[in-house]
Amino acid sequence: MDLATLGEFGLIEAIRRRARVDRRVWRLGIGDDAAILRARPREDLVLTTDALVEGVHFRWSTTDAVSLGAKSLAVNLSDVGAMGANALGCLLTLGVPPGVDPAHLDGFLAGLLRLAHASHCPLIGGDTVSSPLWLISVTVVGSVARGRALLRSGARPGDRIFVTGELGGASAGLALLSRGGPSSASERRLVARQIRPRPPFRAGAALVRARLSRAGIDVSDGLAQDLGHVANESGVAAHVDVARVPLARGLTAAASRLGLDPLALALAGGEDYELLFFAPPRAGTAAALSRKLGCRVTEIGVIARGSGVHFARDGSDYRLESAGFQHFKPARANSEK
Amino acid sequence: MDLATLGEFGLIEAIRRRARVDRRVWRLGIGDDAAILRARPREDLVLTTDALVEGVHFRWSTTDAVSLGAKSLAVNLSDVGAMGANALGCLLTLGVPPGVDPAHLDGFLAGLLRLAHASHCPLIGGDTVSSPLWLISVTVVGSVARGRALLRSGARPGDRIFVTGELGGASAGLALLSRGGPSSASERRLVARQIRPRPPFRAGAALVRARLSRAGIDVSDGLAQDLGHVANESGVAAHVDVARVPLARGLTAAASRLGLDPLALALAGGEDYELLFFAPPRAGTAAALSRKLGCRVTEIGVIARGSGVHFARDGSDYRLESAGFQHFKPARANSEK
Repeated sequence: MDLATLGEFGLIEAIRRRARVDRRVWRLGIGDDAAILRARPREDLVLTTDALVEGVHFRWSTTDAVSLGAKSLAVNLSDVGAMGANALGCLLTLGVPPGVDPAHLDGFLAGLLRLAHASHCPLIGGDTVSSPLWLISVTVVGSVARGRALLRSGARPGDRIFVTGELGGASAGLALLSRGGPSSASERRLVARQIRPRPPFRAGAALVRARLSRAGIDVSDGLAQDLGHVANESGVAAHVDVARVPLARGLTAAASRLGLDPLALALAGGEDYELLFFAPPRAGTAAALSRKLGCRVTEIGVIARGSGVHFARDGSDYRLESAGFQHFKPARANSEK
Repeated sequence: MDLATLGEFGLIEAIRRRARVDRRVWRLGIGDDAAILRARPREDLVLTTDALVEGVHFRWSTTDAVSLGAKSLAVNLSDVGAMGANALGCLLTLGVPPGVDPAHLDGFLAGLLRLAHASHCPLIGGDTVSSPLWLISVTVVGSVARGRALLRSGARPGDRIFVTGELGGASAGLALLSRGGPSSASERRLVARQIRPRPPFRAGAALVRARLSRAGIDVSDGLAQDLGHVANESGVAAHVDVARVPLARGLTAAASRLGLDPLALALAGGEDYELLFFAPPRAGTAAALSRKLGCRVTEIGVIARGSGVHFARDGSDYRLESAGFQHFKPARANSEK
């Protein structure tokens, strides 16, 4: 797509043609002052937004346009899923330079729209602006049965702590990219976790449907930090056995080559976009939950009265140095150790 | 607010404390993976997003932080209002440099949150990111009685064309800023229309409540262009008597000083954020509508069978050269004449 030829309205029309919108849910998609959603009775709507900025969240030297398009939606699907909601649609604010590479623009939209289709989350609106650098802000609206959302404040003493998939891969991938790139198929898989996360975005809604959980959060800032949010908001203590935390495949070898601690990456590294959820014993074992959710599930600890996040290894306290990613903090606080 | 001290979570917490959320509408605001909206039966929800980028949409040399905060929400309230909807809440993506001026950040949030409060559109979520330049993307969700939204496709032959307020002020203000700034109180008012638009964001909902209109659009790209959207989507022709178009106060004098055509600014200049709406004769006169909507209303033309936008002056065709603002087009096409 050549922007100089298309202009803003041409670009919007090209996107509109490629967005496939379910008219039972959306009375109106792209093409008016706003999109119109037909709200259904007995549902709550969830709304979330997440942004990616060129040079801050991604670099063209280490990502491809299709992955970037998919990631910009995926990180929001992760948030909506962590509320136990099904995505209904998304809005895209896209800022690109006037002389943008048409292949970048095409690839970006292809990646975003393909995931939008696969996740039944059509692009229903947005804003395209000129900008000296790429900036992407996606808002997703989703639906959850009234009063049944998974909340950070929903964890209760006695709940078991579960996490989907595996951890540490995305931050190992980032470390590999910043140190010369991956050197094996196994390391390339870790890099792929960083540039193209695949959150289990249907798992949260499955938990709500089966009434198995009231609390969840996605692992975006790092397990320690995200667990801290839940402990704080729920007024409870979270106890984690670090030996049970599922390490990403290939993480140990890659961390060893890089001189990093794989466990620190798994506990404090961000951007894994797995689902961390909390469920009472009656919800069943991790194996049973895994079958119900259609993805790997691991039990890593328990919620108790008290406060804070407590890691233990072999029965002793395990002290974690880093506390995950924060924007605006001095660079050293966010760098890998 | 000093970002280096606060960090990302400190900033979010500071914003959260200042956002005043109505718990009857929002089950949850800032503080989880997503906000939760309690959808009501018999309503449609509208969603829109609009972005401002430093150096493209604003410059710190010509705006102040409070105005910028208000404008970033106002342009979205304008879209929601033009759907005939009442705003329910907003999400803010805010990208600022790590060393951002605390006064800029404070002022921006004060301006946005003050208008959020005045318009009953609380800040219920968002994303704060580090960025080399300021970037602001606001998403607003609103509510309108089911099936009653004002659409671009809703104009019918015989409808009268009405516009609120006055036109051309914002683009005259922009021209003044680019040519040394305003030189009188009257010119300062035009500049204020550019840096701090005040859309009549309740007028659209009032039209829907009184069942007076089915079609509307906000004047953001310029009257000619926005009217063209309605003519296209409704499959009708729009006939405007340019002598009736309400020129902004002080526009003629300022345009004369700048060597510009005031009528061209009023017809093709963008960013006035007035409401353009369409109503059958039974809706009453402009004076009656003005009383009902609580703002100035002018009848400027009529919808007929056919296509396109047709301007006339003294009974003859009036030809307009420019066609309003488009991003990504060569600069000359967007510059004032």
